[in-house]
Amino acid sequence: MSEDKYCLVTGGAGYIGSHTVVELCEAGYKCIVVDNLSNSSYESVARMELLTGQEIKFAKIDLCELEPLNKLFDDYKIDSVLHFAGLKAVGESTQIPLTYYFNNIVGTINLLECMKSHDVKKLVFSSSATVYGDATRFENMIPIPETCPTGPTNPYGKTKLTIEDMMRDLHFSDKSFSFAILRYFNPIGAHPSGVIGEDPLGIPNNLLPFMAQVAIGRRPKLYVFGDDYDSVDGTPIRDYIHVVDLAKGHLAALKYLEKYAGTCREWNLGTGHGTTVLQMYRAFCDAIGFNFEYVVTARRDGDVLNLTAKCDRATNELEWKTELDVNKACVDLWKWTQDNPFGYQIKGVDSKFFGDKGDFSSRVVSLGKGTSFEVKLANLGATIVDIVVNGCSVVASLDNETEYKDQSNPFFGATVGPYANRIANGTFEINGKRIQLTVSKEDGNVVHSGINSYHSKKFLGPIVKNPEAHIWTADFKYVDEETEFPARLSTLVRYKVDSEKKTLTVEYESKVAGQGSTGANITNHTYFNLNKFNEATIKGSKVQLIDNTGLEVNNKLLPTGNLKKYTQVATFNDSPTEITEKEPVLDFCFVSGLPAKLDTRSSPLTPVFKLSNEDAKLEVEVATTEPTFQVYTGDYVDVKDKYENRAGICCEPGRYIDAVNNPEWKSSVVLPAGETYGHKLSYTFRTL
Amino acid sequence: MSEDKYCLVTGGAGYIGSHTVVELCEAGYKCIVVDNLSNSSYESVARMELLTGQEIKFAKIDLCELEPLNKLFDDYKIDSVLHFAGLKAVGESTQIPLTYYFNNIVGTINLLECMKSHDVKKLVFSSSATVYGDATRFENMIPIPETCPTGPTNPYGKTKLTIEDMMRDLHFSDKSFSFAILRYFNPIGAHPSGVIGEDPLGIPNNLLPFMAQVAIGRRPKLYVFGDDYDSVDGTPIRDYIHVVDLAKGHLAALKYLEKYAGTCREWNLGTGHGTTVLQMYRAFCDAIGFNFEYVVTARRDGDVLNLTAKCDRATNELEWKTELDVNKACVDLWKWTQDNPFGYQIKGVDSKFFGDKGDFSSRVVSLGKGTSFEVKLANLGATIVDIVVNGCSVVASLDNETEYKDQSNPFFGATVGPYANRIANGTFEINGKRIQLTVSKEDGNVVHSGINSYHSKKFLGPIVKNPEAHIWTADFKYVDEETEFPARLSTLVRYKVDSEKKTLTVEYESKVAGQGSTGANITNHTYFNLNKFNEATIKGSKVQLIDNTGLEVNNKLLPTGNLKKYTQVATFNDSPTEITEKEPVLDFCFVSGLPAKLDTRSSPLTPVFKLSNEDAKLEVEVATTEPTFQVYTGDYVDVKDKYENRAGICCEPGRYIDAVNNPEWKSSVVLPAGETYGHKLSYTFRTL
Repeated sequence: MSEDKYCLVTGGAGYIGSHTVVELCEAGYKCIVVDNLSNSSYESVARMELLTGQEIKFAKIDLCELEPLNKLFDDYKIDSVLHFAGLKAVGESTQIPLTYYFNNIVGTINLLECMKSHDVKKLVFSSSATVYGDATRFENMIPIPETCPTGPTNPYGKTKLTIEDMMRDLHFSDKSFSFAILRYFNPIGAHPSGVIGEDPLGIPNNLLPFMAQVAIGRRPKLYVFGDDYDSVDGTPIRDYIHVVDLAKGHLAALKYLEKYAGTCREWNLGTGHGTTVLQMYRAFCDAIGFNFEYVVTARRDGDVLNLTAKCDRATNELEWKTELDVNKACVDLWKWTQDNPFGYQIKGVDSKFFGDKGDFSSRVVSLGKGTSFEVKLANLGATIVDIVVNGCSVVASLDNETEYKDQSNPFFGATVGPYANRIANGTFEINGKRIQLTVSKEDGNVVHSGINSYHSKKFLGPIVKNPEAHIWTADFKYVDEETEFPARLSTLVRYKVDSEKKTLTVEYESKVAGQGSTGANITNHTYFNLNKFNEATIKGSKVQLIDNTGLEVNNKLLPTGNLKKYTQVATFNDSPTEITEKEPVLDFCFVSGLPAKLDTRSSPLTPVFKLSNEDAKLEVEVATTEPTFQVYTGDYVDVKDKYENRAGICCEPGRYIDAVNNPEWKSSVVLPAGETYGHKLSYTFRTL
Repeated sequence: MSEDKYCLVTGGAGYIGSHTVVELCEAGYKCIVVDNLSNSSYESVARMELLTGQEIKFAKIDLCELEPLNKLFDDYKIDSVLHFAGLKAVGESTQIPLTYYFNNIVGTINLLECMKSHDVKKLVFSSSATVYGDATRFENMIPIPETCPTGPTNPYGKTKLTIEDMMRDLHFSDKSFSFAILRYFNPIGAHPSGVIGEDPLGIPNNLLPFMAQVAIGRRPKLYVFGDDYDSVDGTPIRDYIHVVDLAKGHLAALKYLEKYAGTCREWNLGTGHGTTVLQMYRAFCDAIGFNFEYVVTARRDGDVLNLTAKCDRATNELEWKTELDVNKACVDLWKWTQDNPFGYQIKGVDSKFFGDKGDFSSRVVSLGKGTSFEVKLANLGATIVDIVVNGCSVVASLDNETEYKDQSNPFFGATVGPYANRIANGTFEINGKRIQLTVSKEDGNVVHSGINSYHSKKFLGPIVKNPEAHIWTADFKYVDEETEFPARLSTLVRYKVDSEKKTLTVEYESKVAGQGSTGANITNHTYFNLNKFNEATIKGSKVQLIDNTGLEVNNKLLPTGNLKKYTQVATFNDSPTEITEKEPVLDFCFVSGLPAKLDTRSSPLTPVFKLSNEDAKLEVEVATTEPTFQVYTGDYVDVKDKYENRAGICCEPGRYIDAVNNPEWKSSVVLPAGETYGHKLSYTFRTL
């Protein structure tokens, strides 16, 4: 069992759950998300990892199955539970009521039984204002206080009330349980980052997601159900609460339970302010900058004039109140919608388990799936697992996570960092302090960061987006946990796949996480073999460089300080050099002519390396913003039963070798807190 | 799938369920009882079979497991459902609320899902007045109408209301469902037969069972919780309804659903009359004829002054009203309590499956278990499967139902009927009509009823009782379904075990079921071997008869009309005849000297046969009320690998051989409708 204490978030991949997980992480809680993904996507969890810079454990479990849930409680020290999981569509609940009763009630009973048997005592429950039913049936119950008699009018609301009852009854039987029952009004909006938001399947049931889909062009027009209510504009009044405020309400409730053990109490979470449908429409149009069509149709069954929360209890007891208004919610929703017009469901993206079945942190995500240019990326090392051009794999690739973790893997497709290439004797000085890394037994130096290497670290994420029809981006993040380097790095790796241009762009951006300075030099270690389908090696391919001037190196492959012409390889001005079984043997650092600086991304992305193969009728061009690029013909590759030497050729742009020990280059690789390291490279394929 | 249409009764082994099954059977419904027996006993089902004279199918299924329930719906054509199953103790529900929510709700969801998938549309639900909660919180809601707002105050009541909601919601989603939701007030009393009643485990929660246990001496005194309420005597007022009236209410509701498909409606089932606790106490003391102690203690949490039903809706719509008052309920409860002071839980009784695992109609019930005289009885043939004296089996016995059904079983321990012994040529005349039975291929006669024989029929029941500490009775019943005889018999077989006297008494009582007359001659075919543990045959035992005069028979073993002395066997006046490996060979009908008549039970129970064994230090004496007794030394016994010839000796009291064809004896074996056939025999064991 892990010693960390976790907050279990059921339904944490969903709309409100995911926003709450983000707030919990930001408040220092470690979260485990449990979700059956029946109405949500793991993508939201991957995205939250990037957003928070924290690992978020995830288990795909249906709460209606007791056994896996129980095992999770066995495996982790769970301290508190936030329970969002449940079916939630009012209309659907009237059509398949038994499914609603079964899922919502049995799931909760199983959860409570696990809590009971594992001595977990705190739970924050996602209830709903729906439990009040039509509060306008009473006099003076608008705004609705928590003391308003309940009376849900649909199966969904009844399951929420039954669950509330179960919690109150369990608490009555055992006062050591603490339950915060949160009755939501109308959650709207999205995280201001635009990274997570509401992703309804099918036709949205709620006003705001519907308006967003109309505005983005997915639906023709908005329907307003009745304008003959007794309000300023004739449309019904609701209490819309920004989902981030709502998420913070959960945090406040959890804190309350931590302070007042043995509580079982209901709190409304709303703003206390009513907004009509047409007022919301106006606010949304203002936020997006244009108007769209709406039509008024008949009243909808079950709709009532006014459902506004009385929020005094939450304000007074939870010391929480809403801070964001409907205008802000509209702005945030629109950012989310524009950045993710189809929510988490993106055409041309596919993901598969790469490690253990069910380990969502071990995935391979494909970008450009179904096009003639597909790139597969793993969380492990933010690795380029494969590049498939016109249906053919053109890089050295392994089959699963275990193989990638094996010692014999020569950094196939890996993110190399925090410090690529060699550091002489594994030592350097930063801010007057000498650092000694664990050196290689073979040559006494450190290559590609040695035991600190990123190629076997699990990266967070990715956030996958599809900003244009033929473009996909995937952002991975890694924050050093333990490192021999003098400070922890937080590194973003952004892949961009353009299936039209057949270009994969990779961008690295690092900052120091916390204080201090450290070395940074990050690149990718892809082995190209354009004719891989026919040839196990690069024999028969042709290569050219921007310049064949490189660093002269000694027998330990460390720079002597001199430059040298490596005439065995052609420049762009020469005829390309044909690669044979044995020649040329390259493992040299060539200069690109671009300046060495901490963030090279302002330099032009300059082609430095071209590889072509006439059999495959394909060419790849590597471009970079970096001052040098290592070219390696793979002569030491030896992956048992899979790859022999010269299985691929690498072009690894980066900083000068051992720059950290060279006064002239040192400033380009020493990253102080507050500054940014950056590097951009691209692989562009062309059909010949 | 069976072609019969069944009414499925969940929880049908319980208090209200069992009384309803009886009413359903009596109204002509075929019932399948489903019960997990968690708070009830199969004994109630066995007893209902006797009470109704009908087979009641039973499946031990927990509704929380969908699969076996679904299979039941696959296997039988279920037309309607009465749903009683559920946990029902208010106090317990506050202690283990999750268990209540899970059991009651999941069980019902599974049931409704099975109904849905099998197109079963009618359900009568056992709800409770508990759903109203404290109706005195409103003005003018006593008596409580169905329109009183619900508001249960304990988990039990909440599960009932949630289930009601589920049914209303399911009906809303699919109007072809019909639900009758019956809200009971306080069911009391028992079936007037005293055969079935309430059998609470542990301390009774309700007033009447508690009073009954005080009256019968199981508890010291009655507690009255508060006498300072605003009623005539200060104790709370409840609406007590006789359980038989309540059961009839279910029948009325089912009839209503049959008439008005698509109904979903609630009905109160109560009397409309309130009775205080002390008034009930008075009524009960009057019924039992003596007073017992009660003490007034503090009010009980949750008790309110008055919960009386408004019953107009049921009266008007279901055309049902209560017919039995609280006095009658007290009388019936007291009969049940006196006849069954420990309900269905009887010390010294044990039952095991005899056929397929889970087939409750194939049981072996042991009477006198744990004493030095134990008798084991099977439903198959109401067979004496074993008699165990001082720990030793003393009769030929087989291991399971299959062996008893095998052709080679020579009627071991079986009930022989409807017509024991031979009928010449298998033919006889009754009321001027000639009957021809299927004859034996061997000798052209019919022996022991031939293909109509009772030895392989499943008897209903048993009703087991324990009227005194050392006495147990078991009543089995068989009603002919198909028979070649001219009328159907309804036969009661009553076993009585007296462990002190080591006597097993067997009584047969038959009446014609329906019209007509038929032949009747019923006996038991036990094979004694007192030294069975040491000797495979009766060799070494000694035998004596009341008289060695018997019927002379021809080569077909049919009487010639003469009597004959069989001197090879001793009389009670002689030294007993020692049985050797080959001698004597007996298969003769001896005369007892008692008169031949239709019901011999008024004759003295007369010892006619004695068997003793010195090794076993044991003697058995067979007594009877019959005019003759066949003695058979088992020379044709041949049960493969189990029993050889002379494995036991039988004494089968009965009527004269072929009496049905003999004018002198015929009236003793021809039973007309309305008259009673009777016979009594006993086996008494003595230690030498």
